[in-house]
Amino acid sequence: MPAHPFDDDPAFPLHHGGKIEIRPTVRVRDAAGLALAYTPGVGRVSAAIAADPRLADELTWRSNVVAVVTDGTAVLGLGDLGPAAALPVMEGKALLFKEFGGVDAVPLCLDTTDTEEIIETVVRLAPSFGGINLEDISAPRCFEIEARLQERLDIPVFHDDQHGTAIVVLAALRNAARVTGRDLSDLRVVVSGAGAAGVAVTTILLEAGVGDIAVGDSRGIVHVGRDDLSDVKVKLAESTNIAGFSGSIEQALRGSDVFVGVSAGTVAEDAVASMAEHSIVFSLANPEPEVHPEVARRHARVVATGRSDFPNQINNVLAFPGVFKGALSVRASRITEGMKLAAALALADVVGAALDEDHVVPSVFDPLVVPAVSAAVAAAARVEGVARR
Amino acid sequence: MPAHPFDDDPAFPLHHGGKIEIRPTVRVRDAAGLALAYTPGVGRVSAAIAADPRLADELTWRSNVVAVVTDGTAVLGLGDLGPAAALPVMEGKALLFKEFGGVDAVPLCLDTTDTEEIIETVVRLAPSFGGINLEDISAPRCFEIEARLQERLDIPVFHDDQHGTAIVVLAALRNAARVTGRDLSDLRVVVSGAGAAGVAVTTILLEAGVGDIAVGDSRGIVHVGRDDLSDVKVKLAESTNIAGFSGSIEQALRGSDVFVGVSAGTVAEDAVASMAEHSIVFSLANPEPEVHPEVARRHARVVATGRSDFPNQINNVLAFPGVFKGALSVRASRITEGMKLAAALALADVVGAALDEDHVVPSVFDPLVVPAVSAAVAAAARVEGVARR
Repeated sequence: MPAHPFDDDPAFPLHHGGKIEIRPTVRVRDAAGLALAYTPGVGRVSAAIAADPRLADELTWRSNVVAVVTDGTAVLGLGDLGPAAALPVMEGKALLFKEFGGVDAVPLCLDTTDTEEIIETVVRLAPSFGGINLEDISAPRCFEIEARLQERLDIPVFHDDQHGTAIVVLAALRNAARVTGRDLSDLRVVVSGAGAAGVAVTTILLEAGVGDIAVGDSRGIVHVGRDDLSDVKVKLAESTNIAGFSGSIEQALRGSDVFVGVSAGTVAEDAVASMAEHSIVFSLANPEPEVHPEVARRHARVVATGRSDFPNQINNVLAFPGVFKGALSVRASRITEGMKLAAALALADVVGAALDEDHVVPSVFDPLVVPAVSAAVAAAARVEGVARR
Repeated sequence: MPAHPFDDDPAFPLHHGGKIEIRPTVRVRDAAGLALAYTPGVGRVSAAIAADPRLADELTWRSNVVAVVTDGTAVLGLGDLGPAAALPVMEGKALLFKEFGGVDAVPLCLDTTDTEEIIETVVRLAPSFGGINLEDISAPRCFEIEARLQERLDIPVFHDDQHGTAIVVLAALRNAARVTGRDLSDLRVVVSGAGAAGVAVTTILLEAGVGDIAVGDSRGIVHVGRDDLSDVKVKLAESTNIAGFSGSIEQALRGSDVFVGVSAGTVAEDAVASMAEHSIVFSLANPEPEVHPEVARRHARVVATGRSDFPNQINNVLAFPGVFKGALSVRASRITEGMKLAAALALADVVGAALDEDHVVPSVFDPLVVPAVSAAVAAAARVEGVARR
């Protein structure tokens, strides 16, 4: 292959040929082996599954394989790049699923952005998979796609941009509250961003007992008096912003305890400085945080970002491998709110005695993360009655 | 796991947990590695592909990965078992793709049997794949699905039940003709079965120069005078049966040189005995050949079956790994008739000096098969103008 124009960027040679492959787990070395793994032996296995379809969970790879499905409309922070350009990200996800969780994952980048077509396509694909990880599908379609797929399928459907982020944010906030000597219910939180991540973060924080949350989009804080709200934002307005605040995000930050940024916007240093004492700033926009962590650290007690070159990296890889591993291990039919809460609390507890301002989440390379999260998710699935074993 | 009721059949324990897995080809051991294989590094790769989508062939696994797509309507010889029961067969196919051809393959069993829905689903999945292997989709839908998909996609679409079988049959017949001192054009052939395999076998034999073929279905030999023919069979009637014969398959066998059985029917010993001297019998129904090979051998000079426990096993695994490996290696946009013919001739030649009545095809474990077939297919793709490199 000729030298590639991007070869001075080490990400490009690393990606040549892709990042994953299919590997046989049984070997076929002779005619006898072929007659077991393929015809005629495989025909007896197929006939048994035809008689009892649940046997496919035991006799195929299905119960450990997740489809990583995207339409390429919200690739990382880069926007609508289309399905081909989304493939390296989905391969990366599959790589991390296996490397961290031991879960097989197949990247599927769809050549459609139509809600109905995406839903129909995934429903038709479902017999081959134990779970569906939706990825990088833009809001608000992502909400409807996830909800309607979960209605129709009896395997977990999980939009990671929403719930992966939400689980890790809750874990980090729980630990940040501990570090600063407060309960979640004591905190006044401002969430910047009312897209996939913002909605899910707000939902899980409310469930976890945070009492006061204001959510802002590009037009300011969401409140019931606004007439420009989508259905999803109307629901947000009804469940948040108990004070009925109607100003900008920066105005809302004044005196508040927590900032969670999951937008593409920026936040001025003044606004961070105006927050309450012992403030907590999670500035998660990628690759450029809403406020640089060094700037935030001048005023805030705990600062987290999505970046690996600063403390407290909020990375979805802390959640999704363990969440799916746990759900698949008990053949859960869905991933409930209780399972997500359990994942967040287990993740927070992994930090243990290392907990301080710069360690509110564990490292993604901490070997206890996936066992802790998956065990908590599996147990919660049984509590919630969605486990099938 | 409790003892399984099928554990006395070694095919069942072999299938526990499935036969394939996803494996990373790059390892992520630290934050620096994660920043290349995942965010932010992967974002630069995605941006480059968004600017030039063909880069996905280099920078993802796409150019070496095939979707193995079925609707479960014609699983082996077992019929319409549905998508879940088809999965072990598709996994087996994926196993053989990798083991024999080094090609990654993903089993996708669709929960629809509707022609339009299957086509739309595969079109939407195409951005993630370098080729589409259709499998175990019943006739006549399989013909339209393959043709219309190939019209819409610029990657190979290959229905293996048709063309894989046809390639191996042609290779075997070419060698059987050599053994018996004849040319293909000398042979009078009777094909039993006008489904996926029968149509494709007939097509490739006509292209290879066989002059006289009669094709039979459950109602006897197909001829232009019949009023019960599907569109596909009307075309068959127009291109075969130059004598205008209108009797049964067994009647047609009288004095003919070659029987190719790709049906679920049976053929009586008398009918085989009535064939010309030095006759050739390929009795390929699975698992029960139309006529038992020991019975056929009493009368025929060359006998082949689909079974591994008799000489001359006609097995698609002789074709599909090399065909796709060759097509993918030059990023062919389709698999043309010329490429299939080239595959068959290359496969026939692999037998070499070992050629005799009991060795008209190589062993599936012959290490020369895939290199020979893939090289021939790649070269033919360039001759035919469908190669992209």
